Amino acid sequence: MSVVVRNVERVDRGVVEALAPFGVATIHEAQGRTGLMAPFMRPIYPGALIAGTAVTVSVPPGDNWMIHVAVEQCRAGDILVVAPTSACDCGYFGDLLATSLKARGVLGLIIEAGVRDVATLTDMGFPVWSRYISAQGTVKATLGSVNVPIVCAGALVNPGDVVVADDDGVCVVPRAGAESVLAASRTREQKEAAVRARLAAGELGLDVYDMRAALAAKGLHYRDAKD
Amino acid sequence: MSVVVRNVERVDRGVVEALAPFGVATIHEAQGRTGLMAPFMRPIYPGALIAGTAVTVSVPPGDNWMIHVAVEQCRAGDILVVAPTSACDCGYFGDLLATSLKARGVLGLIIEAGVRDVATLTDMGFPVWSRYISAQGTVKATLGSVNVPIVCAGALVNPGDVVVADDDGVCVVPRAGAESVLAASRTREQKEAAVRARLAAGELGLDVYDMRAALAAKGLHYRDAKD
Amino acid sequence: MSVVVRNVERVDRGVVEALAPFGVATIHEAQGRTGLMAPFMRPIYPGALIAGTAVTVSVPPGDNWMIHVAVEQCRAGDILVVAPTSACDCGYFGDLLATSLKARGVLGLIIEAGVRDVATLTDMGFPVWSRYISAQGTVKATLGSVNVPIVCAGALVNPGDVVVADDDGVCVVPRAGAESVLAASRTREQKEAAVRARLAAGELGLDVYDMRAALAAKGLHYRDAKD
Amino acid sequence: MSVVVRNVERVDRGVVEALAPFGVATIHEAQGRTGLMAPFMRPIYPGALIAGTAVTVSVPPGDNWMIHVAVEQCRAGDILVVAPTSACDCGYFGDLLATSLKARGVLGLIIEAGVRDVATLTDMGFPVWSRYISAQGTVKATLGSVNVPIVCAGALVNPGDVVVADDDGVCVVPRAGAESVLAASRTREQKEAAVRARLAAGELGLDVYDMRAALAAKGLHYRDAKD
Amino acid sequence: MSVVVRNVERVDRGVVEALAPFGVATIHEAQGRTGLMAPFMRPIYPGALIAGTAVTVSVPPGDNWMIHVAVEQCRAGDILVVAPTSACDCGYFGDLLATSLKARGVLGLIIEAGVRDVATLTDMGFPVWSRYISAQGTVKATLGSVNVPIVCAGALVNPGDVVVADDDGVCVVPRAGAESVLAASRTREQKEAAVRARLAAGELGLDVYDMRAALAAKGLHYRDAKD
Amino acid sequence: MSVVVRNVERVDRGVVEALAPFGVATIHEAQGRTGLMAPFMRPIYPGALIAGTAVTVSVPPGDNWMIHVAVEQCRAGDILVVAPTSACDCGYFGDLLATSLKARGVLGLIIEAGVRDVATLTDMGFPVWSRYISAQGTVKATLGSVNVPIVCAGALVNPGDVVVADDDGVCVVPRAGAESVLAASRTREQKEAAVRARLAAGELGLDVYDMRAALAAKGLHYRDAKD
Repeated sequence: MSVVVRNVERVDRGVVEALAPFGVATIHEAQGRTGLMAPFMRPIYPGALIAGTAVTVSVPPGDNWMIHVAVEQCRAGDILVVAPTSACDCGYFGDLLATSLKARGVLGLIIEAGVRDVATLTDMGFPVWSRYISAQGTVKATLGSVNVPIVCAGALVNPGDVVVADDDGVCVVPRAGAESVLAASRTREQKEAAVRARLAAGELGLDVYDMRAALAAKGLHYRDAKD
Repeated sequence: MSVVVRNVERVDRGVVEALAPFGVATIHEAQGRTGLMAPFMRPIYPGALIAGTAVTVSVPPGDNWMIHVAVEQCRAGDILVVAPTSACDCGYFGDLLATSLKARGVLGLIIEAGVRDVATLTDMGFPVWSRYISAQGTVKATLGSVNVPIVCAGALVNPGDVVVADDDGVCVVPRAGAESVLAASRTREQKEAAVRARLAAGELGLDVYDMRAALAAKGLHYRDAKD
Repeated sequence: MSVVVRNVERVDRGVVEALAPFGVATIHEAQGRTGLMAPFMRPIYPGALIAGTAVTVSVPPGDNWMIHVAVEQCRAGDILVVAPTSACDCGYFGDLLATSLKARGVLGLIIEAGVRDVATLTDMGFPVWSRYISAQGTVKATLGSVNVPIVCAGALVNPGDVVVADDDGVCVVPRAGAESVLAASRTREQKEAAVRARLAAGELGLDVYDMRAALAAKGLHYRDAKD
Repeated sequence: MSVVVRNVERVDRGVVEALAPFGVATIHEAQGRTGLMAPFMRPIYPGALIAGTAVTVSVPPGDNWMIHVAVEQCRAGDILVVAPTSACDCGYFGDLLATSLKARGVLGLIIEAGVRDVATLTDMGFPVWSRYISAQGTVKATLGSVNVPIVCAGALVNPGDVVVADDDGVCVVPRAGAESVLAASRTREQKEAAVRARLAAGELGLDVYDMRAALAAKGLHYRDAKD
Repeated sequence: MSVVVRNVERVDRGVVEALAPFGVATIHEAQGRTGLMAPFMRPIYPGALIAGTAVTVSVPPGDNWMIHVAVEQCRAGDILVVAPTSACDCGYFGDLLATSLKARGVLGLIIEAGVRDVATLTDMGFPVWSRYISAQGTVKATLGSVNVPIVCAGALVNPGDVVVADDDGVCVVPRAGAESVLAASRTREQKEAAVRARLAAGELGLDVYDMRAALAAKGLHYRDAKD
Repeated sequence: MSVVVRNVERVDRGVVEALAPFGVATIHEAQGRTGLMAPFMRPIYPGALIAGTAVTVSVPPGDNWMIHVAVEQCRAGDILVVAPTSACDCGYFGDLLATSLKARGVLGLIIEAGVRDVATLTDMGFPVWSRYISAQGTVKATLGSVNVPIVCAGALVNPGDVVVADDDGVCVVPRAGAESVLAASRTREQKEAAVRARLAAGELGLDVYDMRAALAAKGLHYRDAKD
């Protein structure tokens, strides 16, 4: 059942780069609160923000052979997304693989398993979002697949989808919807900018969002502590 | 059952500000090792230390409507403390709510759920202690309560209690006991300063604390590795 | 059953210091992928790298008395390794104990439980790898043992073993094998340096490691996305 | 700070016994979805259902001395509720303590920690809801308190409150509200019986609860799979 | 974005019923070790074994409104599969919904969240595989979707797919592959029956599977304990 | 580094069989509260109680090849004890391996990973204590070791050690200490029998164990609820 799919279609780089600055929270909202990976996916260092196209890898537990296979399928602007077929905390990826990916212009790694050499990866500026940090080595004995649909940290990822990652986590934007998500992100951010200014000036969200009537209709009751 | 309690009595700001520099570990000790939240409550960035008066919020899972309601009840020197009625990893709170709270002089947020926009919150210097970091959005559909007693991360919090938070976690000081906890914290720290100097000079805790007799009485046995 | 073993034999300091720069991932590989503690053991601040000889402590849950006893058994170049007899998230260790250990030349602490005063420990540059960060205080009422074999975070640690810790986690090198692990670490790092240069130049791991034939023999299949 | 409070007021036994058959889910609903302990509290065997008055115990980690103290404060119809001051998986309680409690007419144990001798407890028909099953022994060295307010598995428990436990978990009914919760439970169960009959006859909840208009108003959209 | 898809195509009932007796482990193997949900999905009582066609439901955290909507879309032989949009331990489902589903011939429930009334469900013989058991009630305020693709406990489920569940867990068989998985399951079970007889007679797997040469080639080494 | 050690010395069968009826809690106490595995090790069905001699297996994640190798080293009265080199929830073991072990007189399996076919294993009466139940298949590609010291669920296990398992969990008795642990278990149980009779007759543990003076000395304070 192992297969490597070559030349998957990717979202246009212009769209991907335009999406990046909106960040995970806004993009996730803009596409109807879908596509978010589980919150156990954490960056190895703070402050990174990347958006790229997914090269997906399905790997056996404790075996990173297919990551080596996947490197060849990566292009500049890609992000490698790796999910094990069963839960695994091994360190599948370290500074050598990062060196190789960096040489190809890959932007970062998303892995629902472990990563190691994190001090070196931090020095290299190669960002990783992982479930674990672990030095545990892996073997190269069993096949998996590259560029097939995978479920990573609870999110479905198809090869060529947009992946956005920052300090808030990781979000997947399906290929077909990328442009409309970009438009919705722009709209959302403009609205938020206006709201932010009013809140900073001391207005209440209750008034900015006009919530008082709805709250009262639901039966919200106020009383004084001394009563 | 939903209610918003206004004008809750708060611990005197002078007492709260005097408590702050002692930090969580000392204050928790000074009040008999009570009031500590569970260690899964972690700061979104290192180095923050705050002490303030609690405005409490009980929220449904996945619904942050009541946080908007709670903002209006907040005053300068308060800390917002939020607990969901069942375990939830959604991102209830982001930079817009932080902007609003900052405008009112609120010192930070304690939430036994998720927070998002953590890069922006870090830039703003608005500290949050949370169970999760997650971009997952919430709805505004169901009521909860503000300024009622809540259990947050295993600790009982009454509105107006002192909340202290630093890199070690979060501690609650009940309103009635705040002044005596302050006194006990001072005493404790003075003792520790004297001990610290002796330990730094190379004295052993076994001697500083005079433990040898008690250990021997319990039956502690020493032997040499070569025996 | 409580005992304190004095004067345990330690790995030669020259060997330990030579091991340090290789770090956890390389050393763990060099000794056949053994000796690694579980990945829930995390440093309280990034960037620390230490190697030292283990002074082991077996402690009851919620009781740090034996850590005070253990301090006296520590020498310059040692690392304190503490495991509770049942899972415990209490804060067994804070800045006073760190002051005492530092005065004796101890390099750091490994504890499968909680640590507190982490802001101060960070300022002091005293590194700790722990399972939890927690301000929860402990008692001094029940004995344990010092310098007996313990299981810490899933790894067997004998007193005098080498312990290496960095951002990737914690690894134990048994006393008897330390010199051969050092030799194997050197060999491994030399090989990796050569590989790193080739990968940085754009060569693929598939070719550098000569994997293509083995992959084909296993049945790896390539197809184009458009097929 | 250690104290044993004697002769706490308990909810009237008639009310407690009338509450029991409604079970945890109904009672929790009848009091506005409050009072439920976290779902990690599980029975050691299926099929038990108890309701009694709480004798509360606050214990240090790994120390069950205060449970022995608490036994003396128990009366027929009580339930012992035990919470450690920090997370602990030790086996605080076994068949000897169960023998003692049974002799006093205590109905069962709720403990946010470990229990042991579960095969014997099952044979005895002494039900326990616990976070862990563990044979790990505890010491008798440090005081705690009996019949003070505690937080157990996220729920506030005051001595004398009603505790109800069944296969769904554990719920606390505050003393003051017990009678009105009983009335509300009766009302709720009567309504449910009528609904159950209609659903069993094939009517849809959409119609029984008259949900269609509200769903449509929210914008629920139906389409055929073939469209 | 909320939608209810009607009249989804289902795998032929004959195929589904033929698959059932093979159970989860065999079917999961027969389709190349794919489709398995995470092992935290556990049955509420032992001994149940069901296979049916999936009606999928995506629900908000703490809100079970869409389950009521989904009931109408269920037919005899279906299994309801429910996933929350973020992690949630609420009790979404109890005996009333089970009564309704049973009246329609639904075989069971798979839910990556909580279930309640488990004693009654056990009496009714209505099997549930869930992540949690919890009495915590839910609201009916926010829409979700029915019969859209969902990720449940790490497995992708499309409406109409086959779902098989037993004491080992839950496995999803995509609609398109059901017949070939059935054939492969038969083949696998026949082979296993032959192997089982040989193993029961005392033959070693090393010989039955002819492993000795491959193990030796990998370098497996035998030595005697006394050497 | 892979090795299979043959003919390891085992504790005398008479001693092992005499230990069995004392169960895990008593034996663990009798050897000074050591040797217990972590409480996440749970039996697949209630009521089993076994004691046997350990055949240990160190396996890679997701690879059960070495279990097949280990079967040949098993004798009547043995218990197979399996630990993966990194955390793994795969189903390493099912009814075929159980058939093979049963044919050799092996009493059960202890595995810090997953097991499958649990319904069949229950029917066969082949008990297993595991960390997970999972149908996830494993490969046969990488070597491990048989009858070397391993750490399983936090406990050190040497080949030939006694392993005892019941509903409370799993305990390891080192080979050298087995006879003295047997003697201590007998002593302990005799004492407990006498205590049990007194407690059943209504005496309090406070008096049976003569605790009142020690509690008072520690400062335990009693007060009446009405005071």
